[in-house]
Amino acid sequence: MPPLPAPGVSPGVRLGILGGGQLGRMLALAAARLGIPCHVYADRPDSPAFEVVRDTTCADYADEAALARFAQSVDIVTYEFENIPDSAVALLERLRPVLPGVRALATTQDRLSEKRFVRGLGLATAEFAEVSSRADLEAAVAAIGRPAILKTRRLGYDGKGQAAIRAGTDLDAAWRAVGMAPSILEAFVPFEREASVVAARGADGTVRPFDLTENVHRDHILHTSTVPADVPAAVAEEAMAIAAAIGAGLDFVGVFAVELFVLPQGAESRLVVNEIAPRVHNSGHWTLDGCTVSQFEQHVRAVCGLPLASPRRLGRVVMTNLIGAEVESWRELLAEPGAALHLYGKAEARPGRKMGHVTRLDPLS
Amino acid sequence: MPPLPAPGVSPGVRLGILGGGQLGRMLALAAARLGIPCHVYADRPDSPAFEVVRDTTCADYADEAALARFAQSVDIVTYEFENIPDSAVALLERLRPVLPGVRALATTQDRLSEKRFVRGLGLATAEFAEVSSRADLEAAVAAIGRPAILKTRRLGYDGKGQAAIRAGTDLDAAWRAVGMAPSILEAFVPFEREASVVAARGADGTVRPFDLTENVHRDHILHTSTVPADVPAAVAEEAMAIAAAIGAGLDFVGVFAVELFVLPQGAESRLVVNEIAPRVHNSGHWTLDGCTVSQFEQHVRAVCGLPLASPRRLGRVVMTNLIGAEVESWRELLAEPGAALHLYGKAEARPGRKMGHVTRLDPLS
Repeated sequence: MPPLPAPGVSPGVRLGILGGGQLGRMLALAAARLGIPCHVYADRPDSPAFEVVRDTTCADYADEAALARFAQSVDIVTYEFENIPDSAVALLERLRPVLPGVRALATTQDRLSEKRFVRGLGLATAEFAEVSSRADLEAAVAAIGRPAILKTRRLGYDGKGQAAIRAGTDLDAAWRAVGMAPSILEAFVPFEREASVVAARGADGTVRPFDLTENVHRDHILHTSTVPADVPAAVAEEAMAIAAAIGAGLDFVGVFAVELFVLPQGAESRLVVNEIAPRVHNSGHWTLDGCTVSQFEQHVRAVCGLPLASPRRLGRVVMTNLIGAEVESWRELLAEPGAALHLYGKAEARPGRKMGHVTRLDPLS
Repeated sequence: MPPLPAPGVSPGVRLGILGGGQLGRMLALAAARLGIPCHVYADRPDSPAFEVVRDTTCADYADEAALARFAQSVDIVTYEFENIPDSAVALLERLRPVLPGVRALATTQDRLSEKRFVRGLGLATAEFAEVSSRADLEAAVAAIGRPAILKTRRLGYDGKGQAAIRAGTDLDAAWRAVGMAPSILEAFVPFEREASVVAARGADGTVRPFDLTENVHRDHILHTSTVPADVPAAVAEEAMAIAAAIGAGLDFVGVFAVELFVLPQGAESRLVVNEIAPRVHNSGHWTLDGCTVSQFEQHVRAVCGLPLASPRRLGRVVMTNLIGAEVESWRELLAEPGAALHLYGKAEARPGRKMGHVTRLDPLS
């Protein structure tokens, strides 16, 4: 349980954020709206989040002395990414509340435990099999069939640590492609579209989901998010129920995202859980401009023990990521009526790097 | 003219902000959305804006060495309040573009020059007379009549440096109340309501006003701003024309506010210019939650030579200031559906101090 700040002239809480990317940056900006100062801990001096806070620590995630000083300087610790070393979380937890909790982190850091957790809730996932060796891979492909996707259990994101196994794919090559790391094989899901629920859950169990978002990926990286998703109301309601069940099952405090496959009409179950992100999520960036409260503010409220807001969407919204050199269109985007531009302050536009995003809101629909 | 940043992965401009209050804080937060880092210069270590930027200078506004270092660390200088010492502006102007320019500042720092400027545009103001001595005051009251308001020419805000002169008011007391400083006497304007236009003006002369805002003051401090103002469309259009004329007359670059008195129907002219603020303005805070672009972002765009956005209001909006102890209601406000809370991170809730604001948006109207 997070401590409940005493009434006073401000929430009076200091928030520590592990991770200094754009998610940490936007969390710190949301905290600032509420008068909450943040201390950002990251391992790279050019971390975008360092620019928007007074207190920063640039140190390795294994630096125990730096972690301890960081924890002692704040009241609550949260994180912007799920791949924090266990040792860091364990150390921090001894000193301050770390939210979302270690249980949510442990479950979602590992694709195998995540899949088992989701199945345990009675929810649909892709067929999957554990792959710890080359022999396992052979057996898994035999059981699940092709096409399928081999994914490392840990540390994957934006398509990294994945290998597609199609009709002619050589299994040796696939096994090398994932670095022979502990993995799972997932059956290919013939989805009609991809969607996600971004939801906030408070320490008291209150769940406040944002509207169902439809996502399009390009090269395994999110390209656009459109809200509302083009699905029947019953499907959107089912998605909300899935998110609520997952949040409760993880005893989650904060904002999380559930990525879903929407199957074509006529399928037994129309929604299949793809992945859980135990943090604010790229597919929730539209809330900054298209909703009465942002996912970042909801996360800050949840982890700081403050009441959650009741999100209201302001219209039809399309969020488009600016990946790599796409960010060079920033001047045209600034001039485009109705476009809200966000740039993350990254100096170098490497291919595949998330540099910013643009949100287009149509308030009439 | 501000320099136009070259195309690239970001605007690539560093913005210096003079003044560290809530306006500077919200300017820096808006700049951060666009990937623009800010350096805040303020004279108090507990300045709210220091918390949201990496680069800070805490020094007196007369510290020439500190001012020079500040200017050299940024590309463009702007300010959050109009009462900057002339000497500081003169020094900064020799090193970097200072926007809005010195002409706008000089005209609006002095109530007398401001009134003359507005009259020179053919716009209506209250009747006024210069008061430089006790004898002037006597003559001014004889000419203008009672009730009237005596105001210092410089450094007044939120009712400070003002004395009402009613039927029985002793003129000696009034003259002492304004510290015997150079002043003007203004006739009382029997207004029906108060309103303001907050507008952005680019270096190329483009003007983008926000919708006319209706303001209610309590104890000379803004209490609520409601948008749209409850006036006929022709009056709102007249207000926009007045703002455009003032912006052009000052050759203004950035966001400014024009406070207006709305006279009852039947008056010869329904709008009288009360005051010009050469900066972002409290009556524009509603734009953070009730518009597709905020006044703060528009100001950053204007002074950095970036294209202005085209503001679109998202519904009917009411902004309420949280003054002094009113901020203690923050927890209830966080729990109120539809209320967007902003806290400025000030530790002490002194009477009359602006501690935060809350915006209520009704997206349907």
